[in-house]
Amino acid sequence: MATVIAVDAMGTDRAPKPEIEGALLAVRKHDVEVLLVGREEQLRSELGPNPDPRIRIANATEVISMDEKAAAAVKSKRDSSMRVGLRLVRDGVAQGFVSAGNTGAAMATAKIVLGGIPGVDRPALAAVFPTAKGTPCIMLDVGANVDCKPQNLEQFAVMGEIYYRATFGNERPRVGILSVGEEESKGNELTRAAYPLLKQLSLNFVGNVEGRDLYNGQVEVIVCDGFIGNVALKVSEGLVSTVTTMLRSYIQANWTRKLGYIMARGAFKEFKKRLDYSDIGGAPLLGVKGVCIIGHGSSNASAIKNAILVAAEAVERGVNHIIEQELAALRAAGSHA
Amino acid sequence: MATVIAVDAMGTDRAPKPEIEGALLAVRKHDVEVLLVGREEQLRSELGPNPDPRIRIANATEVISMDEKAAAAVKSKRDSSMRVGLRLVRDGVAQGFVSAGNTGAAMATAKIVLGGIPGVDRPALAAVFPTAKGTPCIMLDVGANVDCKPQNLEQFAVMGEIYYRATFGNERPRVGILSVGEEESKGNELTRAAYPLLKQLSLNFVGNVEGRDLYNGQVEVIVCDGFIGNVALKVSEGLVSTVTTMLRSYIQANWTRKLGYIMARGAFKEFKKRLDYSDIGGAPLLGVKGVCIIGHGSSNASAIKNAILVAAEAVERGVNHIIEQELAALRAAGSHA
Repeated sequence: MATVIAVDAMGTDRAPKPEIEGALLAVRKHDVEVLLVGREEQLRSELGPNPDPRIRIANATEVISMDEKAAAAVKSKRDSSMRVGLRLVRDGVAQGFVSAGNTGAAMATAKIVLGGIPGVDRPALAAVFPTAKGTPCIMLDVGANVDCKPQNLEQFAVMGEIYYRATFGNERPRVGILSVGEEESKGNELTRAAYPLLKQLSLNFVGNVEGRDLYNGQVEVIVCDGFIGNVALKVSEGLVSTVTTMLRSYIQANWTRKLGYIMARGAFKEFKKRLDYSDIGGAPLLGVKGVCIIGHGSSNASAIKNAILVAAEAVERGVNHIIEQELAALRAAGSHA
Repeated sequence: MATVIAVDAMGTDRAPKPEIEGALLAVRKHDVEVLLVGREEQLRSELGPNPDPRIRIANATEVISMDEKAAAAVKSKRDSSMRVGLRLVRDGVAQGFVSAGNTGAAMATAKIVLGGIPGVDRPALAAVFPTAKGTPCIMLDVGANVDCKPQNLEQFAVMGEIYYRATFGNERPRVGILSVGEEESKGNELTRAAYPLLKQLSLNFVGNVEGRDLYNGQVEVIVCDGFIGNVALKVSEGLVSTVTTMLRSYIQANWTRKLGYIMARGAFKEFKKRLDYSDIGGAPLLGVKGVCIIGHGSSNASAIKNAILVAAEAVERGVNHIIEQELAALRAAGSHA
């Protein structure tokens, strides 16, 4: 039986078009079925008279917009596309959920509707970054938890390592703590307290890493509190956007440059694609009971397709089941120590 | 009388060449004299028989290397080029100091030798970033203080704003707190506690800003604790390095692209120059009694020249005196509240 992924059809800035097109791309590419969650009438008219049978619609009358405050929206909108989609996962109708809507609302709704995996005190959002070596690097948490305890970072390390292994096929991903120097003594109160906890785990722990290691391919899994992770993610997004804008303006300064650009265009396309976060598809929210992938509001159809495939793979590889097992083993070992 | 700047001649990775050449460029460009601090014999032989009279040498027998632990090196090497250079400032022989050596050691030595400006609990290192709008943005602290209190952020805001006004000629620079959302309620414990303190200051306070605002030119002065600032700085450096490496490899993939690159080369040069932190010259350590500019270890002669000019300007504009006055006024206002 094909994996069923519920997709928030009202999430992106141009919803529901990218969601519908992304769903079509996904079902053609992988053995997956999609439940588009949103305003039924609108979705039915956009889908047309003879939709692909692998794409169905689940009605949700409300939409949480990008600029709504997460806490209030989650409380008041009980029939939002996020809530309905996550209920489908909780009730076993779907196995995974994808949303490119309001990140804060999606995380809060997932925690309420799905609940946490036993052993996880706080779920974490993991962002995937491209590196100079071509291998991805994941960093968690990037926004779910602003003030963290050392135990949270320990659990982020376990979850992130499992997710990396299951998703990117690296048997011994290197795990590091984001800090301001390599020595164990460097860092703030949180990282210094987390260091010995991570050292005890049976992970490929490489100690502290620095901001520049996010992109050099020297480490695969980086843990940090959600405040620092969110800042690092947004600094990166801001810099990429500035860099591409600058380069474009310099190139358009005269005709020789423009012609040169046309000849070297392929290089720029590859470059842009490589830096394009949408190509990665979305950030998994790890630690909730069910697969939940959160995409960027500016996602296009290809990004939605990738997010659906990422969700389907996480389901098929049983990522959550493995996280639950390994955390239980960790607690058992801890109780005998 | 010309301003005298003491320059750590043993700081950069290729010392003392960039320091000597940078000093020569600086004295030709601005009414400034340079005291090169380092191993006298080596410097004398590099300078040649008839050196520019505006460049003199101050002997220091020891060198703190890049990979030495700051605390131990500062303690054991009493005759390091950093220590001797900063003593020259303390004793009034020079008015400012520039080093592109071990950042931690330079900051620690400056704090010990110069001491703090009254009213400053902790000096802060301010990094200067290029933005999409062409105006610079400064962020502090980027590494001097790992765990901060709300009062530290308040003082960083005052110092950063004064430095920006004095250096970049903007009368009302916008000041923001680096956080994970714009609302006052967003952020971690530190930023939420600092927000009301900054709101009370007579600054152009714009509230919380996010990581992406570092590069978009929407804010001129960003305050944060030294841990987050250091991570943001290093993430940026890492990303810029990865981006330029990637672009180069894509361009060299075939002959059409290479030829196109040659034609559009000017655009790349401008692009690289704009992103090049060395063009900015160095990061001021604000809050110590004396002007102290810390450059990157990879600084070339042009970067050293710029750092010397930045130091001379800070001296000539009386930045430290203004910081002391405004903090005293702030304390006086506080005591009457």
